Amino acid sequence: MIEDKNTPRTSLSELGEFGLIRHLTKNFEIKQETTHLGIGDDAAVLDFDGKKCVLTTDLLIEGVHFDLTYMPLKHLGYKAVVVNLSDVYAMNAKATQITVSIAVSNRFPLEALEELYAGIETAAKIYNVDVVGGDTTSSTTGLLISITAVGHADQEVLTYRSGAKENDLLVVTGDLGAAYMGLQVLEREKQVFEVNPNSQPDLDQYTYLIERQLKPEARKDIAELLKALDVQPTSMIDISDGLSSEVIHLCTQSKVGANVYEEKIPLDPAVISICEEFKLNSTTVALNGGEDYELLFTIKQEDFPKIKANPNLTVIGHIVDEKSGIGLVTRANEKIALQAQGWNPIKE
Amino acid sequence: MIEDKNTPRTSLSELGEFGLIRHLTKNFEIKQETTHLGIGDDAAVLDFDGKKCVLTTDLLIEGVHFDLTYMPLKHLGYKAVVVNLSDVYAMNAKATQITVSIAVSNRFPLEALEELYAGIETAAKIYNVDVVGGDTTSSTTGLLISITAVGHADQEVLTYRSGAKENDLLVVTGDLGAAYMGLQVLEREKQVFEVNPNSQPDLDQYTYLIERQLKPEARKDIAELLKALDVQPTSMIDISDGLSSEVIHLCTQSKVGANVYEEKIPLDPAVISICEEFKLNSTTVALNGGEDYELLFTIKQEDFPKIKANPNLTVIGHIVDEKSGIGLVTRANEKIALQAQGWNPIKE
Repeated sequence: MIEDKNTPRTSLSELGEFGLIRHLTKNFEIKQETTHLGIGDDAAVLDFDGKKCVLTTDLLIEGVHFDLTYMPLKHLGYKAVVVNLSDVYAMNAKATQITVSIAVSNRFPLEALEELYAGIETAAKIYNVDVVGGDTTSSTTGLLISITAVGHADQEVLTYRSGAKENDLLVVTGDLGAAYMGLQVLEREKQVFEVNPNSQPDLDQYTYLIERQLKPEARKDIAELLKALDVQPTSMIDISDGLSSEVIHLCTQSKVGANVYEEKIPLDPAVISICEEFKLNSTTVALNGGEDYELLFTIKQEDFPKIKANPNLTVIGHIVDEKSGIGLVTRANEKIALQAQGWNPIKE
Repeated sequence: MIEDKNTPRTSLSELGEFGLIRHLTKNFEIKQETTHLGIGDDAAVLDFDGKKCVLTTDLLIEGVHFDLTYMPLKHLGYKAVVVNLSDVYAMNAKATQITVSIAVSNRFPLEALEELYAGIETAAKIYNVDVVGGDTTSSTTGLLISITAVGHADQEVLTYRSGAKENDLLVVTGDLGAAYMGLQVLEREKQVFEVNPNSQPDLDQYTYLIERQLKPEARKDIAELLKALDVQPTSMIDISDGLSSEVIHLCTQSKVGANVYEEKIPLDPAVISICEEFKLNSTTVALNGGEDYELLFTIKQEDFPKIKANPNLTVIGHIVDEKSGIGLVTRANEKIALQAQGWNPIKE
């Protein structure tokens, strides 16, 4: 949080748009067979040879989706890619290419964009996607990142939000609520820092939470895992806005209801302990927290034996008929209606 | 330019993100065979059945790329789509799908976004592309539009910037410089309006210029025309930043030089007359003006008879070897080096 005044600052205007794009993208390698042509022409050229092609796009805006006070630019670049790929994985598809557009105000020197692109490059390497295009421009204020991801899958593997059927089991990957609590810790530290800029926070005990917020991972592994387990999910969505909101999306689009069991919701011990510290209900945090980028999906009951031993997967409930509604069955065995309180980016 | 205080204003926060997306996209129809799934899941699903898929993205930012003082929102929506499709057509490909992401500050009521989307919808209809996804969020200031376009073509038809060969002819579609002069007229009127808000400008004589600026069209017709004429271009690029800049891109990527003949550059009579009025050199305007969204391409000399009678196409020069450089042959028959003075969005 302390700015080093000696950091080199190269003005963006020295490079110009094309020079800047060349500079920032010079390390991006093409590795995907489906990438026929990457950056450098009017458009990229992809070749999916008859497979279904998947396309998704996300916009991240400074002051709305991220705060550069505690979000290092490298992490931001990484997270921007991950958030986008998560939508491809939520189709049970393989992500293969991304385009990255950025707008920056002149308060960002070249070195800042290099950091951002280093994060993008790292994510592209780890998730094995090619950066095949983009646009770079100035903004009147702040930083903005728009990423579009492309992927593919065989038709019979592709999984929509709309395929859940009565009696299917509701499954989540990983654990929930940690990213939101990581944000709470960072917000608290920002306030401490604003009061006392010399404070040296000890954040060791919050490492998992902060990592989940600043460097989330998308579940690239799940499509492969389900294939290996010989399970074809009936519906799937990623958990970006909180479990409640996503269960409701999935049920609404599948025209079904669901029972989610409070005691089954997977929580990391660090989430339970930080919730005590902040005097928050950990179930509420898991239901409404958002930014976990885990996957929520449904499977047929008969597939349960194939997944039950897997530590990555937790059955949290089951699908019921539409009229029965979408409810949380509490530890006290009461059913209360689930409500989407997920994050709303369109607010006053 | 006069705000009607009685226009209904529906706050965006009343709708929420998903409500807003549903509301704005409810009229978007799916017409393309290659669109397997449109808006509503984690990602769109496209099916190109073995064809090469083309992908391009653009970012338009208020205060950088457009000025809402004289750019009606409906025109802006239309133009944002057109600008993007132009890159697909510059691959000699067919555009089929777009995703549209927008960020808006709360000073925009719902009705403003409806105008914007009406323009997007009109463009999607006219250019026959499906809107298959997007993202809608708030911004801290102003309006921002990010569009990604997808298209396809058979491999042997796809045309890159890098294919121009010595002795090929350099061809442009339509005429150049009008969009830039339209902007000059609008900027002048804006200044007049700022001094006297009651002035009623008579812009009739500038209709063509203003239309080229506010409602440009992309050359969807050229791929079909060239196919009908049995001409396979050797290289192609769209003219977004001005002829100079695009000739240089094409030559650099093809590792060749070019002679462009000043007297051959196609100018509309309205451009010639407005340049006299503004005391500007019309050649300079055509070379550096930008935003014409015409296409620049090269063909083999032997194909000249096939195109020479076509009013849409003008041969403006030819390709020479790389060492001879990229030059403008003036009316006085002097060769001067072409320089890219096109618009630079990364500026102080």
